[in-house]
Amino acid sequence: MSRYRTFTAADAVEYARQHGQLAEPQELVSADEIGDGNLNLVFKVRDRAGVSRVIVKQALPYVRCVGESWPLTLDRARIEAETLLVHGALCPRHTVQVLHHDSELAVMVQEDLSDHHIWRSELVKGRYYPLAAGQLAEYLAKTLFHTSDFYQAAQEKKAEVSRFANPELCQITEDLFFTDPYIDHERNHFDEALLPQVRELRTDAALKLAVAELKHHFLSKAEALLHGDIHSGSIFVAEGKLKAIDAEFGFYGPIGFDIGTALGNLLLNYCGLPGLVGLREAAAGREQRLQDIRELWLIFADRFLMLCHQHTRDAALAVPGYAEQFLQHVWQDAVGYAGTELVRRTIGLAHVADLEGISDPEMRAECQRSALSLGRMLIVNAAQIEHIDALLVRIRQQG
Amino acid sequence: MSRYRTFTAADAVEYARQHGQLAEPQELVSADEIGDGNLNLVFKVRDRAGVSRVIVKQALPYVRCVGESWPLTLDRARIEAETLLVHGALCPRHTVQVLHHDSELAVMVQEDLSDHHIWRSELVKGRYYPLAAGQLAEYLAKTLFHTSDFYQAAQEKKAEVSRFANPELCQITEDLFFTDPYIDHERNHFDEALLPQVRELRTDAALKLAVAELKHHFLSKAEALLHGDIHSGSIFVAEGKLKAIDAEFGFYGPIGFDIGTALGNLLLNYCGLPGLVGLREAAAGREQRLQDIRELWLIFADRFLMLCHQHTRDAALAVPGYAEQFLQHVWQDAVGYAGTELVRRTIGLAHVADLEGISDPEMRAECQRSALSLGRMLIVNAAQIEHIDALLVRIRQQG
Repeated sequence: MSRYRTFTAADAVEYARQHGQLAEPQELVSADEIGDGNLNLVFKVRDRAGVSRVIVKQALPYVRCVGESWPLTLDRARIEAETLLVHGALCPRHTVQVLHHDSELAVMVQEDLSDHHIWRSELVKGRYYPLAAGQLAEYLAKTLFHTSDFYQAAQEKKAEVSRFANPELCQITEDLFFTDPYIDHERNHFDEALLPQVRELRTDAALKLAVAELKHHFLSKAEALLHGDIHSGSIFVAEGKLKAIDAEFGFYGPIGFDIGTALGNLLLNYCGLPGLVGLREAAAGREQRLQDIRELWLIFADRFLMLCHQHTRDAALAVPGYAEQFLQHVWQDAVGYAGTELVRRTIGLAHVADLEGISDPEMRAECQRSALSLGRMLIVNAAQIEHIDALLVRIRQQG
Repeated sequence: MSRYRTFTAADAVEYARQHGQLAEPQELVSADEIGDGNLNLVFKVRDRAGVSRVIVKQALPYVRCVGESWPLTLDRARIEAETLLVHGALCPRHTVQVLHHDSELAVMVQEDLSDHHIWRSELVKGRYYPLAAGQLAEYLAKTLFHTSDFYQAAQEKKAEVSRFANPELCQITEDLFFTDPYIDHERNHFDEALLPQVRELRTDAALKLAVAELKHHFLSKAEALLHGDIHSGSIFVAEGKLKAIDAEFGFYGPIGFDIGTALGNLLLNYCGLPGLVGLREAAAGREQRLQDIRELWLIFADRFLMLCHQHTRDAALAVPGYAEQFLQHVWQDAVGYAGTELVRRTIGLAHVADLEGISDPEMRAECQRSALSLGRMLIVNAAQIEHIDALLVRIRQQG
């Protein structure tokens, strides 16, 4: 029989005392549940001084934001912990530290990051972290290169593909990114004002053709162990620091999906800023986002290629020029996936504060329309947008 | 402890009596080992009249043609039987029937096909089976479509990808197809006369770049449950009949690999015919091979698209035009993989009778040189050879 039970705050304290790797575990005395995500219980466990010292995160057997009517595997807790452990070994600086995990309880103890902030919240407030894009790029380059065929031995990779198969969470992405937004589906929701544009998307043959290819790549290209959900809400930042969290969507997929998710969320902020902050601040913030996007790609590409040139272990893939050729495919996938993120975050099930946080309804609809247009443009034109500067030109043209 | 033991002829008879699904099993009285392949024991089990009634095939824990110094997983017997069972359910007409299998003994009982001949042997003798190419196309279309993302539910496919992970046999392909022939490796062997051309291949940057991409696709594209080794020696033919056998290389890989292997082996015969039969017969046979290649592709494409149009279950992949767009990628992969088959069968570890069977050394070297040139041309130009008729033009130009 499974030992699984839903944790109370008291359970979280007791568990953190046992597994939090603290010198004086009895100092831990209270916990408060702070989960604002869609899927899990998250406890901050505090000491006698009220200071949060470790996090206890437990998966619930259903989708929290929908309820018990949508059951969801507890195995995602194992996937999350194991993805973070793999990524943490490859890029400890930018991966949240896992102190302990237990698959049967679907629970994980991780380092406290109370001195950090969720990047999305900061972006929504117009707060700029000049190093964040580059650090995210470094995280992506290190984790994706070392779990790709360039570096990982083929037999080991095949075992890892099975270990991280993650069918239920992949299905969520498959449905929410690539199917629902382009049909009339009950999981979609959006402001009435967007209906004309939404209807256009549903009958846009060129768009649906490009989305089909992106979905097929998501289903069939096992290029590296992705984070799988690396949006700005899965990233903690502080002055000069960045940590990826929330890796329950980890699986072997197309590298461009992680890159595109990251780019897409910066673009969502770019689209939302005019409704979130004052006119002048918005203009400056949008310029910063474009620079973030440019840095994210260029630093990722630079680091990934450097790793390919210095550390590729597959003799056939090490031939001059192949890494560059592959990276061009990654780029084109990434542009397309960024577009799907813009679309699904605007009209699909799960929205983002960058757009939802705009209080004026007309301004919100305006920003949402620009996210939809930009998303469509990226998906349809990905193959023609050959490099990062061409992307920036297109975005500026879009207005 | 494993029940595995190497079967004697007497063991094969006893096993066939138990598991051969014969009405009168005691009629089985003798067995002779006929394995001429590289990996396994194969027994024909005969009745009192000397008629072969069933086949007992057992995997050895090493590569038979190399010896005990190259150990190889017995799990390949399970993979083979399970691949044939999946393919047999999808295309019973063209898949050898598995009567029984046992993973621990690494043994399989399969239908006797003594009234058939190995297609390669027939091709080498210049014997023409006008329906074979079309029947192989039908086998490929049915098995590959129904195990692809067009048809197989995503969660089920992920479980199947793990069930058919097949790391050790994939590694053989990874090494023998994509690495060894392009470097100086002890597993390669070839006539001294080919050395100048072999040396050219090893320093051919454009070729090695294209091979890198083909290898990377083999490592990372899980498009469908491939046969994995569908050369003309894995195919039995008889008047109007065709059966695929020997599926121990089965795994989820790029669809173009199976197509390319099939095309490549017809091209090996095309290259070898001038040394195998008389002048006039060779010219007619080569023309037949080109027609075989044309039919194989066109019938495969037609059947695959028809299945996509009628039976695609993924709503996003069902959009008009996507199957055609995907098939174009399959085609380009297939042309490249056909090229790698030509090269590795000429200068790598495992050769074929279509070339090795040529007794005159000069003629043999001439045919081998033409296989190498054709292989290189296909690999390097795959992206420019946009359809089957363009391929035939290129082959004729090559001479």
